[in-house]
Amino acid sequence: MQERIKKLTKLMGEFDLPGIALNPGPTLTYLTGLEFHLMERPTVLLITVEGKTALVLPALEVGKLASMPIKIEAFNYSDDPATRSEAFVRAAELLNFSAKELGVEATRMRYLELMYLGDAFPELGFLDASACLAELRIVKDEDEQGKMRQAAVIAQNALLATLKDIKAGMTEVEVANQLMIQLLRAGSDPSLPFAPIVAFGENTADPHSVPSGRRLKPGDLLLVDWGASYQGYFSDITRTFTLGEVDPELQKIGEIVLRANLAGQTAGCAGIEAGAVDRAARAVITDAGYGHAFIHRTGHGLGMEAHEEPYIFDTNPRILTSGMTFTVEPGIYLPGKGGVRIEDDMVVTETGFESLTDMPRQVLPLEAFMEN
Amino acid sequence: MQERIKKLTKLMGEFDLPGIALNPGPTLTYLTGLEFHLMERPTVLLITVEGKTALVLPALEVGKLASMPIKIEAFNYSDDPATRSEAFVRAAELLNFSAKELGVEATRMRYLELMYLGDAFPELGFLDASACLAELRIVKDEDEQGKMRQAAVIAQNALLATLKDIKAGMTEVEVANQLMIQLLRAGSDPSLPFAPIVAFGENTADPHSVPSGRRLKPGDLLLVDWGASYQGYFSDITRTFTLGEVDPELQKIGEIVLRANLAGQTAGCAGIEAGAVDRAARAVITDAGYGHAFIHRTGHGLGMEAHEEPYIFDTNPRILTSGMTFTVEPGIYLPGKGGVRIEDDMVVTETGFESLTDMPRQVLPLEAFMEN
Repeated sequence: MQERIKKLTKLMGEFDLPGIALNPGPTLTYLTGLEFHLMERPTVLLITVEGKTALVLPALEVGKLASMPIKIEAFNYSDDPATRSEAFVRAAELLNFSAKELGVEATRMRYLELMYLGDAFPELGFLDASACLAELRIVKDEDEQGKMRQAAVIAQNALLATLKDIKAGMTEVEVANQLMIQLLRAGSDPSLPFAPIVAFGENTADPHSVPSGRRLKPGDLLLVDWGASYQGYFSDITRTFTLGEVDPELQKIGEIVLRANLAGQTAGCAGIEAGAVDRAARAVITDAGYGHAFIHRTGHGLGMEAHEEPYIFDTNPRILTSGMTFTVEPGIYLPGKGGVRIEDDMVVTETGFESLTDMPRQVLPLEAFMEN
Repeated sequence: MQERIKKLTKLMGEFDLPGIALNPGPTLTYLTGLEFHLMERPTVLLITVEGKTALVLPALEVGKLASMPIKIEAFNYSDDPATRSEAFVRAAELLNFSAKELGVEATRMRYLELMYLGDAFPELGFLDASACLAELRIVKDEDEQGKMRQAAVIAQNALLATLKDIKAGMTEVEVANQLMIQLLRAGSDPSLPFAPIVAFGENTADPHSVPSGRRLKPGDLLLVDWGASYQGYFSDITRTFTLGEVDPELQKIGEIVLRANLAGQTAGCAGIEAGAVDRAARAVITDAGYGHAFIHRTGHGLGMEAHEEPYIFDTNPRILTSGMTFTVEPGIYLPGKGGVRIEDDMVVTETGFESLTDMPRQVLPLEAFMEN
């Protein structure tokens, strides 16, 4: 942990960031091992480029600090919100922070914490420290890759167990619940990366469909986008199936998306641009005449967050290096008809991308997996 | 839905708020029925006190708007982050918003969205609109109370099913996973209010303990803090059990906490202060000599969020009115030894508080629930 804080302060120097404020989330856990149920009680770790740290947290969380492998000065407040400001002020005094700007994690830091920080450091402005923080976690070591590999195994086993019992007439919610049960049985941590997406028929045309009471019937596509968590690291996979005879166009887009997925997976190795992966997958779909129906980027980084750097979009010049991990998930969406997405989790190596996920990728009949 | 937006704009007038920006979460769902997987893509609903609305969202979410029962002008951007600003600027142009301040939901609004809003409305400052937004959802109608009642039934059934199969030697993680499985089987929505807390022995002394590999053994307290979600509404319950002979002091604090819980439940009815509920429960624990070991407030509001207004702390002068819903959850925590918490979900009525939860509250031997 102390190593990781050193790595961060070194990065802060490079990014010219005198201080960073983090609230609970994967970065805080990565640095300290601490996990919190973040709700209405502000919780912030402050780190200066000199390596000074201070943690503001609710009194009822103080017990967590006993098992922390590093020493951080903590300032706690009671459940009367009037006591919060003082804890922030005392943390600010300890740090004696004289810089004009404090970096924050844009996708995590809330207005709640910004208010208390603004009062405690009255001369201060905030800026987005995402670019610096991305560097901290973007390359996964062997241990982290092993956890992601296990998260992929768990997810795939869970889906196979779920597919066995699927029947026409089940709702999306029923299948999603069954999949969550199988994820937990297969060994996922209880905090899943995201609630599984299970979509049938026309609902597969919405990339972020929410499971509904829609029932499965012959002629449907069935799309599942799901993941497991293993020791804090995630998998994120999508597979699409058919039940009975489906519209030939849906079969056709399934074949195109499969080719696009494979084109993304084989687009390069360490040293290429993230954008090149997107362009390789997108070209297949565009050439087939469905460019307008591939309405999202080809993928995103994956690790302790379901979406993180590196993002795989057309114009992203970021160079991929060994140990970065990301998804390849092209899709074609035809509103009112259906959509296909095929998503795998990749690790960048010197010679290519290695897939952590190995379930059959093609759009297969559900009947091949059902037991009755 | 249109009714609810009217209710909000009326409240905005009373709170002198010319505009509000909401990102995904229960308030946005309450107003629009829309749900999003909020990650790195900024998503914001803007509402002016005149009732004008504009929604900024990623292109891949646009499909969700088709089923929305009200019409809201939407501005979308692609997966290239460079396209985001323009969507925010166009939304700002539509609203033609000339006020100097925009209210935000402090526990939801992130620095990410604040950056884009700041660019789109350059003269603007932000302020905390939590007090206004709390009024919007704090009183639950019959339909909402019915959903919370069902969420309580589901949670209780799930715990009873879990307790049947508990054995000495199981880990906290195993029991937590089993409980999640039973919650889904019993009919919970897949998005639980929070990951269940399952703590054994000395870990019960941490009110927000995270399930670990600690194994259950005779002489342990077993604390479970869990909830279900039913059509977006939550339950949140805590029960504490014993396995075998436990330290007599732990038995004693169990009896004190039960009395404190009942004192909170019977502290009043519509018209009393939230603080009075805390003081009634706390007095029992303080009088018994354990005031220092009750390290959190007596409870919190509950509904579409696991923690919301009204918060039940000593100095809260808020008057409880019929239809408000909150938890009563006193606890005594003895570091290194163990803790007891007993938590129920209450609805305020004209004549008292009605409990939505009715499982036996006292600290009972686990053996009474186990099947083998």
